[in-house]
Amino acid sequence: MKRLGQYTILFERCPAILGHAAVGGKKEAEGPLARDFDQTFLDAYLAQESWEKAESMLQTEAATLAIRKAGLEKKNISMIFAGDLLNQCISSTFGLREMDIPFLGQYGACSTMAQTLAMASMAVESGAANYACAVTSSHFCTAERQFRTPLEYGCQRTPTAQWTATASGSAVLGYGRGVRVRHVTIGRIKDFGVTDVANMGAAMAPAAAQTLLDFLTDTATSPADYDHIYTGDLGAVGSTLMKKLLLENGVQIKNHEDCGLMLYDREMQDVHAGGSGCGCSASVLCGHILNRMEHGTLKNILFMATGALMSTTSSQQGESIPGIAHLIHLQAE
Amino acid sequence: MKRLGQYTILFERCPAILGHAAVGGKKEAEGPLARDFDQTFLDAYLAQESWEKAESMLQTEAATLAIRKAGLEKKNISMIFAGDLLNQCISSTFGLREMDIPFLGQYGACSTMAQTLAMASMAVESGAANYACAVTSSHFCTAERQFRTPLEYGCQRTPTAQWTATASGSAVLGYGRGVRVRHVTIGRIKDFGVTDVANMGAAMAPAAAQTLLDFLTDTATSPADYDHIYTGDLGAVGSTLMKKLLLENGVQIKNHEDCGLMLYDREMQDVHAGGSGCGCSASVLCGHILNRMEHGTLKNILFMATGALMSTTSSQQGESIPGIAHLIHLQAE
Repeated sequence: MKRLGQYTILFERCPAILGHAAVGGKKEAEGPLARDFDQTFLDAYLAQESWEKAESMLQTEAATLAIRKAGLEKKNISMIFAGDLLNQCISSTFGLREMDIPFLGQYGACSTMAQTLAMASMAVESGAANYACAVTSSHFCTAERQFRTPLEYGCQRTPTAQWTATASGSAVLGYGRGVRVRHVTIGRIKDFGVTDVANMGAAMAPAAAQTLLDFLTDTATSPADYDHIYTGDLGAVGSTLMKKLLLENGVQIKNHEDCGLMLYDREMQDVHAGGSGCGCSASVLCGHILNRMEHGTLKNILFMATGALMSTTSSQQGESIPGIAHLIHLQAE
Repeated sequence: MKRLGQYTILFERCPAILGHAAVGGKKEAEGPLARDFDQTFLDAYLAQESWEKAESMLQTEAATLAIRKAGLEKKNISMIFAGDLLNQCISSTFGLREMDIPFLGQYGACSTMAQTLAMASMAVESGAANYACAVTSSHFCTAERQFRTPLEYGCQRTPTAQWTATASGSAVLGYGRGVRVRHVTIGRIKDFGVTDVANMGAAMAPAAAQTLLDFLTDTATSPADYDHIYTGDLGAVGSTLMKKLLLENGVQIKNHEDCGLMLYDREMQDVHAGGSGCGCSASVLCGHILNRMEHGTLKNILFMATGALMSTTSSQQGESIPGIAHLIHLQAE
C-alpha cells in the first residue's frame, strides 16, 4: 500500500471481496433491483419490538450472510467496521453485539459503505487483519422519526427530498478469489452553504465532485477509463449538480449512475428525488454491482458513496450541511 | 504490521507520536492535572453561540496545536480520524470542516481516543498515510442536555454518575522522534446486562477486563511488565469492578490508574464517581501521560479507553448498555 498523488491510496496486493450480501425491506423488494437482494423482509419490524431493533437485525443478517458467502465463520474475522445513521450508531452496536468480533464503529453518514470498505481494505492489505468485514444499514422508519417528523404525522415531502432505504449491505475482505480493491480516495469535508435539510443531494454534490477530481488527478485517468462511475446517494438533484460542478472543472461523465436512482422506480414508487441512507448505496453495491462484476458484465468501476454530515441539532442551530465522499476503485479479476 | 495471537496487532516500524495537545474547560483547569493542558478556557462557550459549537472549537484547537507541535502543517496530514459523543458526531465534523484534511469519522463513545489512535497508527505503518491525526472531544453541557436532562433543570446526580469532561485531546502520528506505538488490541463488544444509565462504569468494566486479558494473552506478558496501566473512563465504580473481574481470571493489577479519577479532585470538585466523556481520557493521555513519557518519568504504558455504546433511544427501549475497550501499548524512545 502506498500513497499516490495527494489524496489516493494505491493497493499493491489488492484485497479481494470474498463475500458480499444485500438485504432489504418491502419497498426495496418491489423495486427494479429486487432480484439482486440476498434476502428481503415484508415487515418493517423484522419481527422485532421496534424499528431500531429491526434495523439492527438488517446488519446482523447482512454481515452473517456475507461471512457465510465468503466461506468463513465469525471467528475468522479479525475486525468489523460498521456504521449507520442513528444517534450513537446503535444499529451497528446492537446488530453486531452478539458476534464477538473486534468492533470499530465508523461514522460517515451515507458515505459509510465506502468508508467501512476503505478501512477494511487497508486493514487487510496492511496485515492488521486476516479478514475484515464492512457493514452498514439504514431504515426508513428510524431515519424519518429521528431526523424529520413522526411517521404518524404524515408530513408532505418536498420534490427534492430523498427516501431513506430500509436495507443493509456487507462485504468481507481478504485474499482469495473476488473483485479487487485497487485504489481508495479519502474525501475532505466540503460545505457550499446548503441549509435545506430536504435537499441532501445538493449538500453532498460538491464533495462528490471534489473526491472524483482528486482521484482522477492522482491516478492521471479520465472517467472514460472506467466501465461505470456509481455515486450514492446524490439522487436526481445532487447528480445534476455534481455533473455541472465537474463540467466547470473540465470533466464530463457519461457513464454515471446514482445508487439512489437505481434502487427504486421513481415514477411508480413515489420516492421523489431518489433513495438515500447508508443502506441504499451499501445494498446496491453489495447486491447489484458486485453481482455484475462477478458475472463479468462490469469489470472496472468507481464506487463513490456520499454523506451529509449534519444532525438535527446542527440544523436547528442554523448550521449549513457539510458533505463528504469517499471513492473506491474496484476491478473484477 | 502483523497479527499477534487472536486479537492484537504488532507494529514493526512503530509509528511515533510526533505532536500532541490537550485543551480543557474551567473545571479541568481547576483540577490536579491543570498544568498538563496546553490551553484552557474559562468560558464554557469559548466565545461561540452554542455549547455544541464550543465543543467543535475544542477539537479545532487541539488538532491545530498537535499539528503545530509536530512541526507540521495541515496540508501535511494525510488523514484525520475524529469522533465524539454528539449525535452524528457533529463536534468533529464542524470542528474540522475548515481544515481540508481527508476525514474519517470514528464512533467508539468514550473509547474514541484509543480507536482514533489505533486507526492513525495503522494508517501510518501501512503506508496509507504519511502523517495521520487522531482527535476527540466532549463537553459537559452538550452531553448533559443530549443524554440526560436540561442543565437548567438542575437534576440531582446519583453517586455512581460520572462527570463529562469539557476537553479535547489530539495526537499526530508519523515517523520521527516521539513515543512509539508498539501494539494495539481492538476490543469486542461486551454486555453484562447493566441498564442503569447513571452507572456507565459498571457497563464498561467487562469490556475493559476482556481487552486487557486478550492483550496479556496475545503478548504473553503480565501487568507488572508495564510501568502503568491507564483506563479511561471507568471511574470509581467501574475500576473496582474491572479489578474484580480480572482477579476472577487470575490477574491482579497494582499499577492501575483511571483517567476519570485523575482529571478531577473527587472530594473538592463534586464529580461523584469521576470524570468521563471522550475528552477525558483523550486530554489525560495527550497532556499528562505523554508529557511524562517524553520527560522519561514513564517509559512503558498501556492506555485502554472504554466506551458505553448506548443512546437515549436504546435505553428508552429497555436495552442494556454494551461496552467496548481498545488498548494501545506505548513505549518511550
